[in-house]
Amino acid sequence: MKEKLILNPRRFFDTDIKVRDIAIELYESVKDSPIISPHGHIEPQIFVDENYTFKNPTELIITPNHYLYRMLYSQGVPLEALGIPILHNSSKIKVEMNPKKIWQTFAEYFYLFRGTPSEIWLNYELAEIFGVKYKLTKETAIEIYEVIDRKLKTDEFKPRRLYERFKIKLLATTDDATSTLQHHVAIRNSGWHGKIIPTFRADSLINIESKGWKENIYKLSEVTKMDIRSYSQFIEAIRERRSYFKSLGATATDIAVLIPYTEELSKPEAEKLFSKALKGKISERETIRFKANMLMEMARLSIEDGLVMQLHCGSYRNHNEIIYKKFGPDRGCDIPIQMEFTKNLKALLNKYGNDKRLTLIVFTLDESTYSRELAPLAGHYPALKIGSPWWFHDSINGMMRFKEQIIETAGLYNTTGFVDDARTLTSIPARHDLARRIDANWLARLVSKHIISKNTAREMIKDLTYKLPIEAYKLHKILS
Amino acid sequence: MKEKLILNPRRFFDTDIKVRDIAIELYESVKDSPIISPHGHIEPQIFVDENYTFKNPTELIITPNHYLYRMLYSQGVPLEALGIPILHNSSKIKVEMNPKKIWQTFAEYFYLFRGTPSEIWLNYELAEIFGVKYKLTKETAIEIYEVIDRKLKTDEFKPRRLYERFKIKLLATTDDATSTLQHHVAIRNSGWHGKIIPTFRADSLINIESKGWKENIYKLSEVTKMDIRSYSQFIEAIRERRSYFKSLGATATDIAVLIPYTEELSKPEAEKLFSKALKGKISERETIRFKANMLMEMARLSIEDGLVMQLHCGSYRNHNEIIYKKFGPDRGCDIPIQMEFTKNLKALLNKYGNDKRLTLIVFTLDESTYSRELAPLAGHYPALKIGSPWWFHDSINGMMRFKEQIIETAGLYNTTGFVDDARTLTSIPARHDLARRIDANWLARLVSKHIISKNTAREMIKDLTYKLPIEAYKLHKILS
Amino acid sequence: MKEKLILNPRRFFDTDIKVRDIAIELYESVKDSPIISPHGHIEPQIFVDENYTFKNPTELIITPNHYLYRMLYSQGVPLEALGIPILHNSSKIKVEMNPKKIWQTFAEYFYLFRGTPSEIWLNYELAEIFGVKYKLTKETAIEIYEVIDRKLKTDEFKPRRLYERFKIKLLATTDDATSTLQHHVAIRNSGWHGKIIPTFRADSLINIESKGWKENIYKLSEVTKMDIRSYSQFIEAIRERRSYFKSLGATATDIAVLIPYTEELSKPEAEKLFSKALKGKISERETIRFKANMLMEMARLSIEDGLVMQLHCGSYRNHNEIIYKKFGPDRGCDIPIQMEFTKNLKALLNKYGNDKRLTLIVFTLDESTYSRELAPLAGHYPALKIGSPWWFHDSINGMMRFKEQIIETAGLYNTTGFVDDARTLTSIPARHDLARRIDANWLARLVSKHIISKNTAREMIKDLTYKLPIEAYKLHKILS
Repeated sequence: MKEKLILNPRRFFDTDIKVRDIAIELYESVKDSPIISPHGHIEPQIFVDENYTFKNPTELIITPNHYLYRMLYSQGVPLEALGIPILHNSSKIKVEMNPKKIWQTFAEYFYLFRGTPSEIWLNYELAEIFGVKYKLTKETAIEIYEVIDRKLKTDEFKPRRLYERFKIKLLATTDDATSTLQHHVAIRNSGWHGKIIPTFRADSLINIESKGWKENIYKLSEVTKMDIRSYSQFIEAIRERRSYFKSLGATATDIAVLIPYTEELSKPEAEKLFSKALKGKISERETIRFKANMLMEMARLSIEDGLVMQLHCGSYRNHNEIIYKKFGPDRGCDIPIQMEFTKNLKALLNKYGNDKRLTLIVFTLDESTYSRELAPLAGHYPALKIGSPWWFHDSINGMMRFKEQIIETAGLYNTTGFVDDARTLTSIPARHDLARRIDANWLARLVSKHIISKNTAREMIKDLTYKLPIEAYKLHKILS
Repeated sequence: MKEKLILNPRRFFDTDIKVRDIAIELYESVKDSPIISPHGHIEPQIFVDENYTFKNPTELIITPNHYLYRMLYSQGVPLEALGIPILHNSSKIKVEMNPKKIWQTFAEYFYLFRGTPSEIWLNYELAEIFGVKYKLTKETAIEIYEVIDRKLKTDEFKPRRLYERFKIKLLATTDDATSTLQHHVAIRNSGWHGKIIPTFRADSLINIESKGWKENIYKLSEVTKMDIRSYSQFIEAIRERRSYFKSLGATATDIAVLIPYTEELSKPEAEKLFSKALKGKISERETIRFKANMLMEMARLSIEDGLVMQLHCGSYRNHNEIIYKKFGPDRGCDIPIQMEFTKNLKALLNKYGNDKRLTLIVFTLDESTYSRELAPLAGHYPALKIGSPWWFHDSINGMMRFKEQIIETAGLYNTTGFVDDARTLTSIPARHDLARRIDANWLARLVSKHIISKNTAREMIKDLTYKLPIEAYKLHKILS
Repeated sequence: MKEKLILNPRRFFDTDIKVRDIAIELYESVKDSPIISPHGHIEPQIFVDENYTFKNPTELIITPNHYLYRMLYSQGVPLEALGIPILHNSSKIKVEMNPKKIWQTFAEYFYLFRGTPSEIWLNYELAEIFGVKYKLTKETAIEIYEVIDRKLKTDEFKPRRLYERFKIKLLATTDDATSTLQHHVAIRNSGWHGKIIPTFRADSLINIESKGWKENIYKLSEVTKMDIRSYSQFIEAIRERRSYFKSLGATATDIAVLIPYTEELSKPEAEKLFSKALKGKISERETIRFKANMLMEMARLSIEDGLVMQLHCGSYRNHNEIIYKKFGPDRGCDIPIQMEFTKNLKALLNKYGNDKRLTLIVFTLDESTYSRELAPLAGHYPALKIGSPWWFHDSINGMMRFKEQIIETAGLYNTTGFVDDARTLTSIPARHDLARRIDANWLARLVSKHIISKNTAREMIKDLTYKLPIEAYKLHKILS
């Protein structure tokens, strides 16, 4: 049973002909627009060497994508069978190393993704990028694997060539605050025109409760050549690192917080807690307050150096401790919790939210905060913007709910437009294509109900596609 | 670029012709029905003198409407540029006083409201009330200003004439519990037939933690000619005031609460806390309990005197302290917080919720409580009704979510129908028109899916438009 | 005014012809499929005697259904007027005993249910099961009562015959953990082929804070012939009971919890708390921990004996104490509260959630947890499945929200398909018909938007209708 894989050109649009025709027109107007990708998780090294080649379809598509393999795990497929390496494999558990076998297993369970964005993205990649003609099933798995594998070995499928083919104009990676950014340096030195910029991810320095924190402070000392023994030196080192990131093109920072609580500490208090943290003697309550204060500092530094501040809120990391201990982080067991922004962000917004020099972009996994908290906050504070629907919510219904629950209160112009958060290079055009279609359809509904005019919709789809992300992430200069 | 401003007669209806035709029929059946407005924030003084004239378009439309100018503020327009007065302007900051300039600024940023109810309402006002022919843009701003300004100076645009033109049958204002209601008295004495009734807003007496509270107690003493030194005198004075409001036509009270916690105190306890509050020595916990008890008292008094009890829940007032200190309250920085009703209202509902003499109308800004708490509660307790989608949620999607999340559980008849909460007189017909369209469209969908019959829908749209608000706010007598 | 009662064959489908035609095709493919009902509240005794006859329409349809009469109560109809018995009627309050009068009252208030699933289900029962030709109104009430009453006295309307006519293949009841299951035994002994299986409902043993708990422990002792003085004996008795239920066909257990908090206690700790509970000296905090530990035990026992574990979460029982004291439990005053699963279920999921032998089915009344917590959790943990939209949410919009908020993240295959939770036998086909229609329409939308193919939809509707419930409730063996 080989079913043809055909992407209907009208896919995802309303069937109502009046809506659909407008949607098609709007979509066509941005379909081929360049891609701006100011936040995501692509590895920069793939762009260093112009001859870099992806190893095989499995390592390109499945292995880096915990969002895919968690679904197979939920139905009882062991992660070992999907090639996920065991951290300390002392008992010599067999981990599947054959990429074809992993691909085959994945194909057999691909039906689990029916109606999910993962299926939509992957079908786009298969059809549009790799020219695959048949749907991925257990019967077609190997044939498709081989088609992709062959292509990956050709010049046209090297990362730099794909970057161009996908019309990417800018791609931001996510990089640890202590990173030397060697790959970014190398890309720059290579003379290639592609714009791969880093993002200052501060988690490793701010999560003082995590085991590796002290080590990270050593790394920070090392990389800044500063002897960090005090809070003020710590902040100074962060400022220095931000400046280094900025020198390599960074326009933004990022932090993941479980709860976005903010509170300002006095300098002596901050010094005291930092010193306690270094001694490993900080209490849970003090940890919370120290981290709350660090969000204040990051906002202050952003006003100073102009870097955009991103907050990714509410993901309870490594919920499944068995998986975490066996396989490490990012294995599909990060689960959202309830969020609260009105009270938690109050200190920060009161101190810095009225300052236009700050851009604070908030991402949430708790959709109940859209209409209740984020839209009213962003509809008032000059500094605040609402980030694109994130992670699980970067989906057809998720994007629609975002629009329907936020725009009537916050307006479109207090959001960032589409931001992809991709983990694999080939998923980037797939994600942007889906977002452009859903945006077009949302606008087409507004037009066909006479809420906005078609002219206005034509402007708004451009805003969503590139104007808003460029503004929110302050990319004008780097793109000009 | 002057774009025509045309309100499509089919606007906001589904494009599906089967739904749309039914929607049109239902809408037509109530389009010209009188307006019942049992809750809102129109100033009563505009009706005292039959020759009252609105000063200019800016003071009619923009200045009283923080819901509008907060959006410009969110994009960096200072409130000073919008004519919002600074409380203690010791440093002589320039506040724009030229209404034309403010109007021009507003017009330049009007694109921010694309797809929001503010745009829909304002377009209705411009086109239907003022006969404006072009869309509001920076190019047309002054021309439109002048059209409106000229009209405002004519007799037809005096408030009493607009009241008639809009077919308003009843308009309730919101008035401080200590108000002399002089304007309401004056309206009555003027012999004009318009029904402008007050609403007893109890916040100033109940918020014992606010700075002005003691002063409000003095005012209460003064206005009731009672010497209020004890809790029992306090309650007696409230009873007396409620009775005064009632004598001027009031059928309802209103309270804004951050958290709708209810708890009954013993008389001695209440006396003790009241005495502490007077001495300024009440703790935070005691404040919460005192206020929780006041909700119980208000319910008890409502059973006594028949006044409907409204609760507006969950708005964190003056979230932005910089703006609050500089410009005062109601400047667009009230932000919702998470709500909980099941446990919080338990004491009140257990004591008074089974009593049909009480009507308790609850408004929420937390839509996650619609299907989870409010619909099940209202679907059981005889006293409880769910108020119309409030504030940010009085929008196309907001009204739709309200219907879709509440009616299947609570039924239509445990809601209040449409209540406008308007801040400007000319927005009232705009808001009712939008609500009637959305109600018609909602019902048309039910009819076209064979969930209800067209006959039933015809009844339901009348219920939504006037029967339910009249019943919920006990307006039969005053309207007959 | 006698309006014809006609069920449009296209009811509940989108009016868009492209969607509707696909929906019809999909619906037709499962319309006559057998009914699997693995969770509900039908009394088993009605199947014991093949000549069992329902008393009258009122006792069949209204009296057992608090979901119906709570709506009349919310509009001021006293429960006495609906025949709800008063527990200790010392003051001789009149309780209506005439079923025709109750039916008449119900009919007069039937308009309250406009647009609700109750109306949809009841209309189906009237038209499809009883052949009623007119809508239920105060005018037609008695006529319709008599039609139904006459039919109930005929052979075709005896429960076993209805079971067959409805094509029920399996019906699970809900039974107290200490029940002798005498009716289930009797049904088996009668030789009838109908599959009526019990479900082990553990609440009475786990809710150690409830007044009757100690008595329930005595009952447990009695029925297991074990002398239960210790925690380990208690667990042993539960194991024994589960095994007895299993021997009579049970494949599942069920627990209702207000908050799904889980925590493992050490054996000595559990023993201590159990002993305290027996002495009535357990604190509130200890009660919470004991119950949290019992959820762990239930999961552990499920892994042992293979019984599926159901959790019905978040219903605050008997919220209205006046009604509870006067009429007892299940009188329409159970109100949902906010839920939290990510942290609460962590201990259980960490210990047992990776074990495929466990199936844990979670039901929630807090829809904000769908996309935020339940879908991500079920999309990761092999043991977890999300139960069908429950109670208030078993409605057209409720089912749609469930699909739209869950499937994109968890996939269809981490849900249970449709589970009815019916309280009356005749509502079962009504509920399944509605669910099949909504499922068909949901899938038709996906097909018409080219998200899935029609072939895939054909499979998915079968999965929803019977494959998923059979798998989730482990019914393969009993059905073969």
